[in-house]
Amino acid sequence: MIFPLGWSVYYREPDALAILYALAVTMVVGGLMTFFLKSRETIRQREGFAIVSLGWIFASLFGSLPYLFSGTFVSFTDAFFETMSGFTTTGASVLTNIEVLPHGILFWRSLTHWLGGMGIMVLFVALLSQLGGGGLQMFKAESPGPVAERIKPRIQETAKALWLTYVILSLLQVILLLFGGMNLFDALCHTFGTMATGGFSTKNLSIGYYPSPYIQWVITIFMFAAGANFALYYQMVKKRTNSFWQNEEFRLYLWITLGSILFICADLALNQPSGLEKTVRDAAFQVVSIITTTGYATVDFEKWPTFSKIILLITMFIGGCSGSTGGAVKVGRILILLKHTFIEILRLIHPRSVKCLKIGDKTVPDAVVINVLQFFFLYLLIFFLGTAVMAAFGLNMIEAFSSVATTLGNVGPGFGLVGPMGNFAAIPEAGKWFLSLFMLLGRLEIFTVLVLFVPEVWKS
Amino acid sequence: MIFPLGWSVYYREPDALAILYALAVTMVVGGLMTFFLKSRETIRQREGFAIVSLGWIFASLFGSLPYLFSGTFVSFTDAFFETMSGFTTTGASVLTNIEVLPHGILFWRSLTHWLGGMGIMVLFVALLSQLGGGGLQMFKAESPGPVAERIKPRIQETAKALWLTYVILSLLQVILLLFGGMNLFDALCHTFGTMATGGFSTKNLSIGYYPSPYIQWVITIFMFAAGANFALYYQMVKKRTNSFWQNEEFRLYLWITLGSILFICADLALNQPSGLEKTVRDAAFQVVSIITTTGYATVDFEKWPTFSKIILLITMFIGGCSGSTGGAVKVGRILILLKHTFIEILRLIHPRSVKCLKIGDKTVPDAVVINVLQFFFLYLLIFFLGTAVMAAFGLNMIEAFSSVATTLGNVGPGFGLVGPMGNFAAIPEAGKWFLSLFMLLGRLEIFTVLVLFVPEVWKS
Repeated sequence: MIFPLGWSVYYREPDALAILYALAVTMVVGGLMTFFLKSRETIRQREGFAIVSLGWIFASLFGSLPYLFSGTFVSFTDAFFETMSGFTTTGASVLTNIEVLPHGILFWRSLTHWLGGMGIMVLFVALLSQLGGGGLQMFKAESPGPVAERIKPRIQETAKALWLTYVILSLLQVILLLFGGMNLFDALCHTFGTMATGGFSTKNLSIGYYPSPYIQWVITIFMFAAGANFALYYQMVKKRTNSFWQNEEFRLYLWITLGSILFICADLALNQPSGLEKTVRDAAFQVVSIITTTGYATVDFEKWPTFSKIILLITMFIGGCSGSTGGAVKVGRILILLKHTFIEILRLIHPRSVKCLKIGDKTVPDAVVINVLQFFFLYLLIFFLGTAVMAAFGLNMIEAFSSVATTLGNVGPGFGLVGPMGNFAAIPEAGKWFLSLFMLLGRLEIFTVLVLFVPEVWKS
Repeated sequence: MIFPLGWSVYYREPDALAILYALAVTMVVGGLMTFFLKSRETIRQREGFAIVSLGWIFASLFGSLPYLFSGTFVSFTDAFFETMSGFTTTGASVLTNIEVLPHGILFWRSLTHWLGGMGIMVLFVALLSQLGGGGLQMFKAESPGPVAERIKPRIQETAKALWLTYVILSLLQVILLLFGGMNLFDALCHTFGTMATGGFSTKNLSIGYYPSPYIQWVITIFMFAAGANFALYYQMVKKRTNSFWQNEEFRLYLWITLGSILFICADLALNQPSGLEKTVRDAAFQVVSIITTTGYATVDFEKWPTFSKIILLITMFIGGCSGSTGGAVKVGRILILLKHTFIEILRLIHPRSVKCLKIGDKTVPDAVVINVLQFFFLYLLIFFLGTAVMAAFGLNMIEAFSSVATTLGNVGPGFGLVGPMGNFAAIPEAGKWFLSLFMLLGRLEIFTVLVLFVPEVWKS
């Protein structure tokens, strides 16, 4: 909270005091907890899950203090929703007018994205050395994708390398945005929203506020970059190999993205013709924004033809690569699911042939395949049940399923009321809490949070 | 086609000649094929799949002849769609006025349901004894659910026992409907639609034509009965055990049905109050109709509140029990999926514990679990891709996903244009062919049909 405080002081805005109070409360509570609570030496797997889930909930509780103290939100529900949406990089907002907010609050709002994107716990692991085996448990519980890849032998060094990559890419984007005429404040906020695949903007019209094709293309490219596995950047630089092209998941990610852009371009060209560059730019921006689960918008895609909207809806479930800041099911899982489908069909034709599932030149163990298949079922099960609950809160069918898909996938905008130019303000109180839970389920990939609901975990 | 011909002659209607021609063409082609084509002794698994898939396509081709010769449909697409919808027990119709049709055609339309419900190939296996091992392959390819259960040591006897149960239950329903004042013709047609979980009615208003609560309850009960595993009836009578209550799948089927009825009753009571009996009857009829994938309607559930519609949409994916005439994913698979989810969560808490998945007192092999998880993924994958294709044909979002869900699940009605009081007539030509393929994919549980698309199957 020190950084947003700096902006508040710089602009001499009244929210400085509110942020200072929030900072003080957080530090005092944190200090007291460190002082009074004993910590055990070893962290077991189940404790790792509990620490990560509860850690995220507490981060969102304290993270909502600046909003509450500054009067941005009167309702605690709204403040918590906005903070959870920030940390989980969802980018769904309950604000109806963003541009009236002071700079400190806006900066805090975007910063929650950036912290949550690479992972609060991963940062924690990177900064603290005395965690021992517990670091690995927490890293595993927070890392997106089927397998938590280690790029360095020690987990702490892996966490450091990932954060370093994240910082360098972010700096690069800030510079390119400044070059396009954006001011430093907006460039930082939009970089946080882009690199974390978050989606909070400082403008009511999202990126649509900037008509410059240059700015839109820069953001498109960096959103795409943030949806790729961060380990690949590190490997490319360190080992000087073409790590991206050698990575099957990245190739699939690229093909799905290009394919979706192509389909939407064709649909738009047929039904809502505009210039070629604009059609390609709009389609590319929106597809990349949704598949990476960022959620920025340059146009109101709610008004696009149905086919384009369905393509966006499907990509909403796919998400970015494993080890990226993107949410949803992840391309790595989709890759395993598709390969396994193909193997099962071949097995019907040759019942006695034993085929192994390989990604690159590595065989994927059966346990991972089952886990991925299981994850897909759980994701859809929770999606369907969530849709029923949101309908019970009075949303119509498209709003119910798109609000659940977009929060569970950490995307941001849905369709209808919660479309790219709408917001979540009109959702009933209980619905906002429910969707906050779904954002957390999505960000921590369901299992980590579900463990909290097993009574046994709380015993001894 | 002999039976509908009988009705035509009895009513002295002009469609008698059309049905006679259709019968003649089918017999001549069948005769020539039997005479000129050599058959091999053994049928391999892949050939079993191919025979079943192609068998269903040919049955639908010849089955559409009565419609074409009688002029019911001018378009071959419409005739094929209606026949495929009949055999696959989907019950989606392209007819805008059902009541003007002659009795022979109406009877044929309902009879396609009854033949397809228990299975064309199962009937074939029951009637012919010289199939050898091939009977088993074909039985497996056509049986719904994760495992093809054999209630008798020999496959032919199993097929006979299943058909016998089917006939007895059907006779019982006909008698009870006659008792309620329905005439014999309508009682037979509606029994075919019920026991096969099909959904074709002889009335434009579907079962809504009959205001009698008695008739509506009888059909509700028999739809529910048709959604249960037919082997359970046989076991109950033969072994005199309470086979239903001992069967975990049936218990889950019962609880899901009762739970859904309860939720919808509450929603209707709050938002669209009417008498208690009518609310319960409407909710029960519609839930049972959709979960068993029958598709009959007594009210226009399109006008129900969103929550109730989402509950119906979810049950559309669940379907009946394995070994029933119901479609969709099947309760047996849902049971395995839910149990496996629970085991995976426990495994996170106790990483070293090895838990087996059991149904009743039998351990489910890992290969079956993987197959079920895989099936769920494939079902949803095909659903999402199908929705995109239907949107490209110009349907709106709700119509696109509900038309795909309802044909893939062999249900019948969807929402919007294709709702319970609507029909599929306005869908573009290509869309009707596409949905016909989806009905077949749903009825034969995807893999059986997909095998046809592997070029290797066609070699040698």
